[in-house]
Amino acid sequence: VSIGAGFVVIAGPCAVESREQVRRTAAAVKHAGAHMLRGGAYKPRSSPYSFQGLGREGLVYLREAGRETGLPTVSEVMEPTQVAHMADEVDMLQVGARNMQNFPLLSALGEIDKPVLLKRGMMASIEELLLAAEYIVSKGNKQVVLCERGIRTFETATRSTLDLSAVVVLKERTHLPVIVDPSHAAGEARWIAPLAKAALACGADGIMVEVHPDPQNALCDAKQALTPAGFEELMEQLDRLAGACAARETVTSGPSDAGHADVLWQPVGW
Amino acid sequence: VSIGAGFVVIAGPCAVESREQVRRTAAAVKHAGAHMLRGGAYKPRSSPYSFQGLGREGLVYLREAGRETGLPTVSEVMEPTQVAHMADEVDMLQVGARNMQNFPLLSALGEIDKPVLLKRGMMASIEELLLAAEYIVSKGNKQVVLCERGIRTFETATRSTLDLSAVVVLKERTHLPVIVDPSHAAGEARWIAPLAKAALACGADGIMVEVHPDPQNALCDAKQALTPAGFEELMEQLDRLAGACAARETVTSGPSDAGHADVLWQPVGW
Amino acid sequence: VSIGAGFVVIAGPCAVESREQVRRTAAAVKHAGAHMLRGGAYKPRSSPYSFQGLGREGLVYLREAGRETGLPTVSEVMEPTQVAHMADEVDMLQVGARNMQNFPLLSALGEIDKPVLLKRGMMASIEELLLAAEYIVSKGNKQVVLCERGIRTFETATRSTLDLSAVVVLKERTHLPVIVDPSHAAGEARWIAPLAKAALACGADGIMVEVHPDPQNALCDAKQALTPAGFEELMEQLDRLAGACAARETVTSGPSDAGHADVLWQPVGW
Amino acid sequence: VSIGAGFVVIAGPCAVESREQVRRTAAAVKHAGAHMLRGGAYKPRSSPYSFQGLGREGLVYLREAGRETGLPTVSEVMEPTQVAHMADEVDMLQVGARNMQNFPLLSALGEIDKPVLLKRGMMASIEELLLAAEYIVSKGNKQVVLCERGIRTFETATRSTLDLSAVVVLKERTHLPVIVDPSHAAGEARWIAPLAKAALACGADGIMVEVHPDPQNALCDAKQALTPAGFEELMEQLDRLAGACAARETVTSGPSDAGHADVLWQPVGW
Repeated sequence: VSIGAGFVVIAGPCAVESREQVRRTAAAVKHAGAHMLRGGAYKPRSSPYSFQGLGREGLVYLREAGRETGLPTVSEVMEPTQVAHMADEVDMLQVGARNMQNFPLLSALGEIDKPVLLKRGMMASIEELLLAAEYIVSKGNKQVVLCERGIRTFETATRSTLDLSAVVVLKERTHLPVIVDPSHAAGEARWIAPLAKAALACGADGIMVEVHPDPQNALCDAKQALTPAGFEELMEQLDRLAGACAARETVTSGPSDAGHADVLWQPVGW
Repeated sequence: VSIGAGFVVIAGPCAVESREQVRRTAAAVKHAGAHMLRGGAYKPRSSPYSFQGLGREGLVYLREAGRETGLPTVSEVMEPTQVAHMADEVDMLQVGARNMQNFPLLSALGEIDKPVLLKRGMMASIEELLLAAEYIVSKGNKQVVLCERGIRTFETATRSTLDLSAVVVLKERTHLPVIVDPSHAAGEARWIAPLAKAALACGADGIMVEVHPDPQNALCDAKQALTPAGFEELMEQLDRLAGACAARETVTSGPSDAGHADVLWQPVGW
Repeated sequence: VSIGAGFVVIAGPCAVESREQVRRTAAAVKHAGAHMLRGGAYKPRSSPYSFQGLGREGLVYLREAGRETGLPTVSEVMEPTQVAHMADEVDMLQVGARNMQNFPLLSALGEIDKPVLLKRGMMASIEELLLAAEYIVSKGNKQVVLCERGIRTFETATRSTLDLSAVVVLKERTHLPVIVDPSHAAGEARWIAPLAKAALACGADGIMVEVHPDPQNALCDAKQALTPAGFEELMEQLDRLAGACAARETVTSGPSDAGHADVLWQPVGW
Repeated sequence: VSIGAGFVVIAGPCAVESREQVRRTAAAVKHAGAHMLRGGAYKPRSSPYSFQGLGREGLVYLREAGRETGLPTVSEVMEPTQVAHMADEVDMLQVGARNMQNFPLLSALGEIDKPVLLKRGMMASIEELLLAAEYIVSKGNKQVVLCERGIRTFETATRSTLDLSAVVVLKERTHLPVIVDPSHAAGEARWIAPLAKAALACGADGIMVEVHPDPQNALCDAKQALTPAGFEELMEQLDRLAGACAARETVTSGPSDAGHADVLWQPVGW
């Protein structure tokens, strides 16, 4: 799998809930054509009384499901002391929106040799996202993938406001690949397909979406999870669209504008 | 021309500056495949010292250019007393973002028999946009087209933040057609094409873009105007994409949720 | 009454609902020490199905109540054609937040010889507020009072986010008086007193608050209306504070920075 | 010193830059009447190329300056592994806005017996701030002080938009003390005094402001630092105001509304 050289789809449950749940999801998304498997083991929840994830046990289940299906895995890391063991368990480490400016975490991720998926903070400017990437890259790890996942605005109809313009601006300012997470932005499963297609059409390098075998009983983000059937339908729609976008214009890109000399593009992959 | 039954492209200069300028633009956008011609005669400018538009003279030039090319025209109306003569001159009357909650203007537009293009205010919620449409529709004029044109957020890299989720939500809540104005949202000509394609991919019924024969010397919004050549390229990209989107899923729609019983879809056209 | 030379309190109902209601409110706020009486006759409501105000009849009741109590009156004007008769009926014409960039209205107000209360739009920058004032002042009417009333942000605990920094910045950039409307910003009667005191402490020239003899049965904005008793208590608290703020530092002010040469301070009054 | 039982002023440099700098600042703010000394040793900077603080060395200088002047100290902690040694060096540990939802850090702070100053995130709702406090309190550390420091909005005239309504709402929803940081909100030294007075007037339990002996040469946040003379003037203005606010109304408070049963007020102090 290479991110930055084709449209990549990352799918899986918000949280790993059990061996069985992640296994079933992995099989389903693999079948439908996903390229990577996501699943949270450490969950940053607004309330201390919400489900906080299975921790190391969750990572084991995720790795097993990834191996069974041949899908590389991605999972969220929440603090510097988790970096070492997560780098052993997963193929790409994710920095969540709430940690985009957790600088000790970013620095620690700059010292490993695994790709990092850096999500934009809910109120982070494009400039700040690039500077956060620079924390990782300047420490030596050049394998950074950026992710637009919606920003916080006055509009409450959607969970966040997906800022697809950011994809366009980022593709101009940096060589790093840029993917889109429509699930967290929309907050409603039925709005994900049109936004995923829009992400493809505006030049994103991929999407990350939440899929759950039984959304109604999901332990987190139940409303925004696609069913396996819904995900399959999305993949078909994306396939049709991808053809029309195939002759994609080469994006003119240069170094970004705030002295981020290191944020140079190279395909991130395995 | 019917809005709501195919992807419609409205193009033209921000402001009508001269007979020659609008004529040249009209010929160019017609040649490239545009369906309607836009051009401002009354311009709502933040500063009283900026160019305020040619007024009635501008409407005459716009109408002439529309007739020569066979393109229906759209132009912005700023106050109730302009409604009558504008309804004589143009085919669709536009309410600008700053006037989305100018209720006397909306009510006046509810009493004519011409389509109205209602732009979302920069800080208007989706609910408020629907209620603004309801002012027009409840007075008897059911020909309303909604337009997402970017909302105001903390991000300053783009002029506004284009909220394509709003298109998705609106298509679910109302039967009214929804178009997108990527020019005002992006504020930069080179970002318009990817956003226009995203608008098509997520289910919008059309776009409105600014085209100027000589953007560098435009009297307003110079940075965001496409050249005729840039517009032609955009149309080609949209054509390729439209095929892949053709088998568009029927949008399940019902009445919107705040008692807007009248906002029922019907193709708006001529 | 002079605005800009002491702390001025404008109070009254959101909407004039009846002769009796505005009369009772006027007597109560006069008794508690208010300097001016407010009351809406034309109401800009988000929904066309909400109470739209009593219109001219409301203006008559407001004027009567003002005369009985000796309080100058202020009421909202919604369109250019209302300017002439409102200038006959009320002492100060208010431009609501939704109309801050209704340029034909601003221009019409620039041609009368009555003070104008210009409320900041929910989405308007400080710069845009000054430019809106410039529309009025550049036409010849220099009697403009600015009003901060809360801006729209992601926070939903309050109706809007009161931006008291704007008062501080405006006092530096313009000579125009600046007042604060804590009622619309807070949206809850019990939060108004502390915000009104903060407005006084940071240098505002006054406040405008909603008072209703029977808030529970108010036809609009019921939750944010103070009772006469609540208003009296607020006035006492403001009086205590005003002493401590009396030795107010002279605000260093110069012309604002975008060529608003005309926005020069002079006390606005009768 | 007790926070929550009188108006407390915390002052000091953004960053500890040298033994001499923090010593001079401490002497000056003590002389002017400050109650606590602030100073950053670990600095969360948007860019990896900005000054990152003196680290442990800075903590030593801060402690020395605090002891010389008898001022308790507060400094920012950035990650869980710093908590233990910082708890030895400073009297109150600060969580910065970017770390408000760094849950492992909050949990670690829940297990020490030192007060925690929790700053509201730039994008955090009032509800989320309370839930973040709940992470600390639910682990056993009930000494939490909340700090409003400005939220991110569309307005760019100020660095952030100070949300004083949040103080009012928080005082109603929680028993925890609430202070205000006008320095980061305003971003300009000359705007701090009026905002500090507004904070006092609306019921805040204190303020935290940046003071530097030589702002022009400060290594961070130079524009917003008060000079010692400016700080002295501010203290005099606050003293005058405090008298008028002394007879402060007892705030009616109850448990906050999302099951934060533990967030009960008790004075936080030494």
